[in-house]
Amino acid sequence: MTAKESWIAVDIGASVMRAWQITGDRVPGAVRQVAAPDGYTDETFEGLLLELIGGWFESGPNCVLVSGLSRVQSAAQMVPFAAVPVKPATLKPVLVPVSDPRIRLFAVPGLRQARPVDVTQGDETRVAGFLARNPSWDGVICCVGRATTWAHVSADEVVSFQAFLTGELCEQLCKTEALGPLPSDGWGGDVFIDAMEATLSRPEALASRLHGLRAQKVLGQGEDAALSVKLAGYFLGAELGASRPYWLGQHVAVIGDTPLALGYEAALKRQGAPVEKMSDEEATIAGLRVAYQALMDLD
Amino acid sequence: MTAKESWIAVDIGASVMRAWQITGDRVPGAVRQVAAPDGYTDETFEGLLLELIGGWFESGPNCVLVSGLSRVQSAAQMVPFAAVPVKPATLKPVLVPVSDPRIRLFAVPGLRQARPVDVTQGDETRVAGFLARNPSWDGVICCVGRATTWAHVSADEVVSFQAFLTGELCEQLCKTEALGPLPSDGWGGDVFIDAMEATLSRPEALASRLHGLRAQKVLGQGEDAALSVKLAGYFLGAELGASRPYWLGQHVAVIGDTPLALGYEAALKRQGAPVEKMSDEEATIAGLRVAYQALMDLD
Repeated sequence: MTAKESWIAVDIGASVMRAWQITGDRVPGAVRQVAAPDGYTDETFEGLLLELIGGWFESGPNCVLVSGLSRVQSAAQMVPFAAVPVKPATLKPVLVPVSDPRIRLFAVPGLRQARPVDVTQGDETRVAGFLARNPSWDGVICCVGRATTWAHVSADEVVSFQAFLTGELCEQLCKTEALGPLPSDGWGGDVFIDAMEATLSRPEALASRLHGLRAQKVLGQGEDAALSVKLAGYFLGAELGASRPYWLGQHVAVIGDTPLALGYEAALKRQGAPVEKMSDEEATIAGLRVAYQALMDLD
Repeated sequence: MTAKESWIAVDIGASVMRAWQITGDRVPGAVRQVAAPDGYTDETFEGLLLELIGGWFESGPNCVLVSGLSRVQSAAQMVPFAAVPVKPATLKPVLVPVSDPRIRLFAVPGLRQARPVDVTQGDETRVAGFLARNPSWDGVICCVGRATTWAHVSADEVVSFQAFLTGELCEQLCKTEALGPLPSDGWGGDVFIDAMEATLSRPEALASRLHGLRAQKVLGQGEDAALSVKLAGYFLGAELGASRPYWLGQHVAVIGDTPLALGYEAALKRQGAPVEKMSDEEATIAGLRVAYQALMDLD
């Protein structure tokens, strides 16, 4: 492969695949995205990928760099995870066979931890992106999504990480309880903070608090938006309790710009943690640029 | 209404409506059921009810006694909840208007608790049924379903109760993580017990343990059935931690016969609690008989 300066960046998320056209150091064009509410099978993946990026080229080969490929059934076998501790900037993208000859697909390996067993599926790329923008940064990077990853970073290495299904649980329960999506405000208010502190101090009450929300909905006590903020507060409090060894006394960077990410920011600030922020898109693109550079260095 | 001895018993569950034809004290015929995966609106409810029981009569009026009616949108306003402490045997069914003249629909009120705010949506009926079969029984009744209700019973009264969304969470997450339904065995084994005890001792780690399962699935560590038993174990351990004041040192009756109910039984036994059991169907029918008797006593 020649070191040509145009390539395509793709992030495979839990329910959406996003792509950007990258040329050199220029600011990339607008994101394109395609929904994948039921995830990705080996059969559907390439079709979705072409739907997303097919309009960007007529012939090939085109270099496509993806993060999160392990969300596709068989990919976990093809792209070995990298065990921590590891420098995310040194993760070597792996060539993955696809049937369309116009595409040369390279996948960024996820991270793997033996104890407690865990993996990343794209957040290793966002961590690399944040670190590229903030050289020599030590602390904890919290990537918020359907799963949230807390990565402890020291001397450019991810030393350990821990992920939580908080976003997924919030989304499923908001649906089940017919509360609607998380609102964009209310994250600094009493409803949210009280809920968050209730499960931070008594995390075992989580499932009971959640049923209390159902009761409040049935009894007409509280607007749906307030109940969904409360729901997120309960989950976040429990997560902050479990991840306390990660964030207590640390610099924390929250990656994400969803309503839930606002909740993380508000909750961490309330607990006295100094919080920096970066958008998910900025971190993802910066991380895929790091991977592209690692790929060029391989040649 | 005359005290005629034939009537129809209906339980409106979270995702399924069940009905039985009752004649005097005779053992009722087989259950009929209709799925309602998206719950019940005012518009769909009566159609589903007729689909379920319409074949059982040509003319009317037919007495239909239902539990769980508050799951239908507007019903929570029509059938006031009864505040605890209350004797479930004394709950008075309330006449609810329906458009089909062949049906006289009576609803068993749910229970309501002010602090922590909570309601029951059918479990009050199962508690009444268990107590009818076990007069003067004191202890804690644990009704397992998509939500699980723990009811503290003393001198025929429900003194307090607490409900958990554990079943709902297990079902949603098994779906999300593509683990398949809960298996019918494995509930006394090490995988389940270890998972349950992990979150019983450290409930705040719940969301992190759940992401660990995703990692194990991605890495191919463990069969789907074992992972789903582990998932249920994590949720149950957290619930047992929060409900400890209910079951510790008490007689416990577990109502239910799903795989999840087996999990509750195994977990409680492991914690040294003496456990009795009753099937959900038996408790529901017995409870609706109690309500029918209360209705006859009203006349």
